[in-house]
Amino acid sequence: MSRVIATYRVFDPKKDLHKKAESIALGLTIGSWTHLPSLEKKQLEKHKGEVIEVIEKETTGLLKIAYPAANFSADIPAILTTIFGKLSLDGEIKLVDIELDSDLETAFPGPQFGIDGIRSYLNVYDRPLVMSIFKGMIGKDLTEFKQQLRDQLLGGVDMVKDDEILFENPLTPFTARVQAGSEIIKEVYEQTGEQKLYAVNLTGRTFELKHKAKQAVQLGANALLFNVFAYGLDVLQALAEDPEINVPIMAHPAVSGALTASPFYGISNKVLLGKLLRLAGADLVLFPSPYGSVALEKAETLDIAEALTENRTLKRAFPVPSAGIHPGLTPLLINDFGKDSVINAGGGIHGHPGGAQAGAKAFRDAVAGVLANNTLQEAATQSPELAQAIELWGAPT
Amino acid sequence: MSRVIATYRVFDPKKDLHKKAESIALGLTIGSWTHLPSLEKKQLEKHKGEVIEVIEKETTGLLKIAYPAANFSADIPAILTTIFGKLSLDGEIKLVDIELDSDLETAFPGPQFGIDGIRSYLNVYDRPLVMSIFKGMIGKDLTEFKQQLRDQLLGGVDMVKDDEILFENPLTPFTARVQAGSEIIKEVYEQTGEQKLYAVNLTGRTFELKHKAKQAVQLGANALLFNVFAYGLDVLQALAEDPEINVPIMAHPAVSGALTASPFYGISNKVLLGKLLRLAGADLVLFPSPYGSVALEKAETLDIAEALTENRTLKRAFPVPSAGIHPGLTPLLINDFGKDSVINAGGGIHGHPGGAQAGAKAFRDAVAGVLANNTLQEAATQSPELAQAIELWGAPT
Repeated sequence: MSRVIATYRVFDPKKDLHKKAESIALGLTIGSWTHLPSLEKKQLEKHKGEVIEVIEKETTGLLKIAYPAANFSADIPAILTTIFGKLSLDGEIKLVDIELDSDLETAFPGPQFGIDGIRSYLNVYDRPLVMSIFKGMIGKDLTEFKQQLRDQLLGGVDMVKDDEILFENPLTPFTARVQAGSEIIKEVYEQTGEQKLYAVNLTGRTFELKHKAKQAVQLGANALLFNVFAYGLDVLQALAEDPEINVPIMAHPAVSGALTASPFYGISNKVLLGKLLRLAGADLVLFPSPYGSVALEKAETLDIAEALTENRTLKRAFPVPSAGIHPGLTPLLINDFGKDSVINAGGGIHGHPGGAQAGAKAFRDAVAGVLANNTLQEAATQSPELAQAIELWGAPT
Repeated sequence: MSRVIATYRVFDPKKDLHKKAESIALGLTIGSWTHLPSLEKKQLEKHKGEVIEVIEKETTGLLKIAYPAANFSADIPAILTTIFGKLSLDGEIKLVDIELDSDLETAFPGPQFGIDGIRSYLNVYDRPLVMSIFKGMIGKDLTEFKQQLRDQLLGGVDMVKDDEILFENPLTPFTARVQAGSEIIKEVYEQTGEQKLYAVNLTGRTFELKHKAKQAVQLGANALLFNVFAYGLDVLQALAEDPEINVPIMAHPAVSGALTASPFYGISNKVLLGKLLRLAGADLVLFPSPYGSVALEKAETLDIAEALTENRTLKRAFPVPSAGIHPGLTPLLINDFGKDSVINAGGGIHGHPGGAQAGAKAFRDAVAGVLANNTLQEAATQSPELAQAIELWGAPT
């Protein structure tokens, strides 16, 4: 019998945790059990939630509850409503893990491309990818857009994404960005022989997104950026499942902090940005790195990365630790997130004294140096751009 | 120039709040300002965020920032991403209020029916409505469904809703529930002359919801229940806007606690369950009452109710304070939420010693008594059902 197992962290150690767990397991499934007539028990048995484990700790407890898949349809809204619908309103309780039985997991698409698919498209197999972001595009026109994209790509980044707050606008309309992006990518390929990705921000009304995404693909878009938490996980899934939207989807964590940031309430980053985004089909997942000013705890970022890349039947998604990234962090990034990750910088590219192109080159040189087992300082002797970056931003050891 | 004003509560009083507010106003719009050339300043002026007010309090601060509508498309995902996208990840900060300029607000439908439309459909103008919910329908069949619905309606509740955790299932399929519901409502009308609403739970994949909702309406559904926070606010808006889905939509707060419960992070109930749900088109909004075990602070519930009913061009939506409601609370409910609210009970109906029908009657008699300026005890002298309810659950004064 297929089921979902949810793990909750609760914070009142004085309460009877076993009783609390029992009341959740029943309350969120069949309501009551003990006093039911035996015929009814037989009918309801397969719908009954089950307490799997209760772990009492110093100040917290962990409750592990199994919910029969017979109770819900195989979609994320139904699962979320079941395991953390009413319960999200019930005092200090945080959803910290979920586990779907494998036959239930097969109802979900997972990433369409994943790490291997993106590597194969880019023809880059042996290093972390490097990514950057446009700088202040609101109020700027297509000429500026093209210049920025060209500079970043020529310097050696593998992919560039729109700013998540760039929406439909008269200066750089969605379709114009797609066409210009595709044009620049061709130009850069002819010049460098390197394939690149540009992730255009897919925005607007929910029921228009599929049409817009298909239109973008037809016009040459080769990746999409999506503010999934401003829409819904199931919307991402529908985009990922659509065979005509055959480009990688990059999930942005905008708004997710409202759900994940409290230690006492909400949903853990591991579940929301890790497990659920992979289930719903994100190919790349941005999350705050542990190094910047807008940061997550390192353990949390590693949990996200593990959920995105651990061995499952679903394809693996790229972890993209973001914010506060500069070339000097490359050894740390590779040490923490491994080769199968994306190094993503904004200020660390555009703020380079030699401009975005030099900023991008500094990252690529840093990556090559680290992978050749050189120190950053050794690598910097061969790369004036990297040397400049280290001088400006430092290189923590 | 149209804009959205967002108010944030921040919790570090030692930081320079004015500087923080400035950095938000710029960081979430054009990025930088001071050192721009004057030509660029002219171009970007209309996109620049503006600090409206900074209020420093003992341990908290309130920051009020205006975002030009020129920066985003007129949809909730774009607004949320702009005002609380990246910012939701930026430490202890809570979005506590939003105000849309009226020309921006007109881009949103608001409730299709609202309080007046629902009153007119039910032909009930002079009292709070009474609502109840099915008890434990998972694993139960249509016979049980019909029996429960009939009992609740015959006792005098105005509307009944599905349990939010009842999804598509073989025993009580969606379309069968709609048809059975419509049948029972006719039957009860013939018997009592009272019009009733049954809100069927609209569930499944996002891109199928419109079709399912239209199918339901064609089969006789006269209300929908929707777990909007398991989907997305924009999905609710699309349902509310569709002229073929011409029935009231009841928004359930499932999963919303993950966003609202922390005092330090996320989004206030006033914004999420109040302003945004009304903007998106909910006709009725359920939220935890201040009286039960799963409860909100009373001030928060009053804020939600005010946001749903305050004078705007948008229609008013019904506040439905829920959980822990029994007939003895009727004077308190009417005092706190007024006549334009819905009294909603589950256990307070089904747990009545005389059964659901008696439970419903106890509520109606309590309402009539209070509105006739009688005490509950006076009303109970005329109503054995109410007397029994008070004996069982009490009547706080």
